[in-house]
Amino acid sequence: MVGPSRFMSLLSCFELGIVDRLRDSPGLTAAELGDAVGAKPDAVEQLLFLLVKEGFVAYDEKSGGYALDALARVAEGDLNRALRYMNLIKVTALRQLFYLTESARTGTVVGLKELYGAEGTLYDAVADHQDLNDSWLGLMNTVTANIDPWFFGNIDVPAGARVLDLAGNTGLGAIHTYRYKSSPGLRVTTFDLPEKESDALANFRAEGLEEHLSFVGGNVFDEIPKGFDVVLIKHFLDMFDKDDVRRILDGANASLVPGGQVHILVPVYPEDIRSADNYNVDFFPAFFIGCTMGQGGPQKLSVYQRWLEESGFKVTKAVTKDASEIPPDVIPVQALISATKVG
Amino acid sequence: MVGPSRFMSLLSCFELGIVDRLRDSPGLTAAELGDAVGAKPDAVEQLLFLLVKEGFVAYDEKSGGYALDALARVAEGDLNRALRYMNLIKVTALRQLFYLTESARTGTVVGLKELYGAEGTLYDAVADHQDLNDSWLGLMNTVTANIDPWFFGNIDVPAGARVLDLAGNTGLGAIHTYRYKSSPGLRVTTFDLPEKESDALANFRAEGLEEHLSFVGGNVFDEIPKGFDVVLIKHFLDMFDKDDVRRILDGANASLVPGGQVHILVPVYPEDIRSADNYNVDFFPAFFIGCTMGQGGPQKLSVYQRWLEESGFKVTKAVTKDASEIPPDVIPVQALISATKVG
Repeated sequence: MVGPSRFMSLLSCFELGIVDRLRDSPGLTAAELGDAVGAKPDAVEQLLFLLVKEGFVAYDEKSGGYALDALARVAEGDLNRALRYMNLIKVTALRQLFYLTESARTGTVVGLKELYGAEGTLYDAVADHQDLNDSWLGLMNTVTANIDPWFFGNIDVPAGARVLDLAGNTGLGAIHTYRYKSSPGLRVTTFDLPEKESDALANFRAEGLEEHLSFVGGNVFDEIPKGFDVVLIKHFLDMFDKDDVRRILDGANASLVPGGQVHILVPVYPEDIRSADNYNVDFFPAFFIGCTMGQGGPQKLSVYQRWLEESGFKVTKAVTKDASEIPPDVIPVQALISATKVG
Repeated sequence: MVGPSRFMSLLSCFELGIVDRLRDSPGLTAAELGDAVGAKPDAVEQLLFLLVKEGFVAYDEKSGGYALDALARVAEGDLNRALRYMNLIKVTALRQLFYLTESARTGTVVGLKELYGAEGTLYDAVADHQDLNDSWLGLMNTVTANIDPWFFGNIDVPAGARVLDLAGNTGLGAIHTYRYKSSPGLRVTTFDLPEKESDALANFRAEGLEEHLSFVGGNVFDEIPKGFDVVLIKHFLDMFDKDDVRRILDGANASLVPGGQVHILVPVYPEDIRSADNYNVDFFPAFFIGCTMGQGGPQKLSVYQRWLEESGFKVTKAVTKDASEIPPDVIPVQALISATKVG
């Protein structure tokens, strides 16, 4: 029950600048902090109680001074990443979750409609709302930068292959494919909605890769282009309910040549849902249903494997990223699944 | 970070009626539950993952059926109280907390202004907004009913005393005083804003106590009526910053005859703020600053004792309710402080 208040008390101490002040000047009192950050000392004292309780900040009864405690030992990069997560949750989820029940009933993101007048998904709304866009893209770029080396380090892309990056947005996945899996004759095609084309082509040119990368516009639920040796599906399947995931997998199968491979990157729930060290279950159902899509959410690795088999694939690899390699503030536990088109 | 999503995933399973259905019909599948509650089976399955993780609900892999697990062993009264708390937090806090930082900077409840166009405090806003009122009053009546027997069982009200219930709202405290501490000649006066008078008098008449109870309208920060043997201050001091708490205590002192007593009921933080079994620190700072008052929050028992001494009192009793007597879903850990006017 205290989840929402704990979350915002902590974030607010960062937003007010209290943590930065204490990093620069350990020992400041509530009165001095209040002056420095423009809040009443009483409010500073109240908000810091939780950080003292958690051992993030130390309080000296005698002097009345505060100093960073555990927070002083967090590397700046880790802290910035954690704050980007917290900002994402604040901006895209905290208020929207109020409408979770209505979202589950209607299959639409009621919170986006109520708060932003937006009819579609979060991915539509980021185009029109700067605050959503900043908070969303800031995190997504971090996630991609952190997970792509692992993903490409664990898949095989044959020399000279024709690769399709399904729902590849504005081409970052295609660029990474070329950088990590370069070979003579390698061609990567980004497939996404037509309105992404100009940005994608500009990105390809900026990287000097326009000869090797191309863009095809379309909708994955209509027809996916055909004749590829490899299809990549990254950060996508978890956005949909089973029916749509199966349609996407069927489409990927049809777009591959016989013996072609699909490589999927997707967050997964643990096989034993009661495992305590995986927070995907604590976060994603409410996030996808109430805040981003009005549907979707990850599945267990074994469920994705079964659905792949139902769509005409033979699974050749299925690995979940080791939780111990993931910083504790990073919620998604990602898995990689490789499968070959049968027959 | 997963606090807000955990909170709403759980509450949403109740709001959708999933828990009630499972109580009536153990073994329903996600598809059957979806039909019954009007949501897509995929969404039901996603939202139930967390309840399975926490052991609240059991899932049978073979049949695909769900049944209440730990939730089946929670008494209905306890569950209803917990749900009232969760509803209070959802309605009065979840969205408002988005604006916590701005509230701390301005000393106003920015969330109420943004979401309801309300300029004042939550206590003002409940008069105009039915959803806030329902969620707030529903809980407050529960809290009062649970804590008043303990409070009155631990204070002494001399026979025939003149008692003032400070900020006594519409008279419930006065009625309880008379019921629990009846004596020949006992007179209890409710002191609160003049607009509460007609409701208070109606409540007194409805109880047949109009001869013993009276109402005086006014503002505690202007002048408190004088000449009382006992002043009660219940559920009030925690709403204010130190300056205002001291003004209230000074006023209570002035309203008492020499040797008169003040009895205070207020939630407190533990003396060792790092104690894990007290959630007041996790909840109240953000709640008072961001959702109800734009200021305030409880203090440690020792701080209230010091402030009472600064206002001319000698503390005669200071007890915190035993945490083991408080149901785990009840956040406030209340304390009782009695003090005598010195000189």
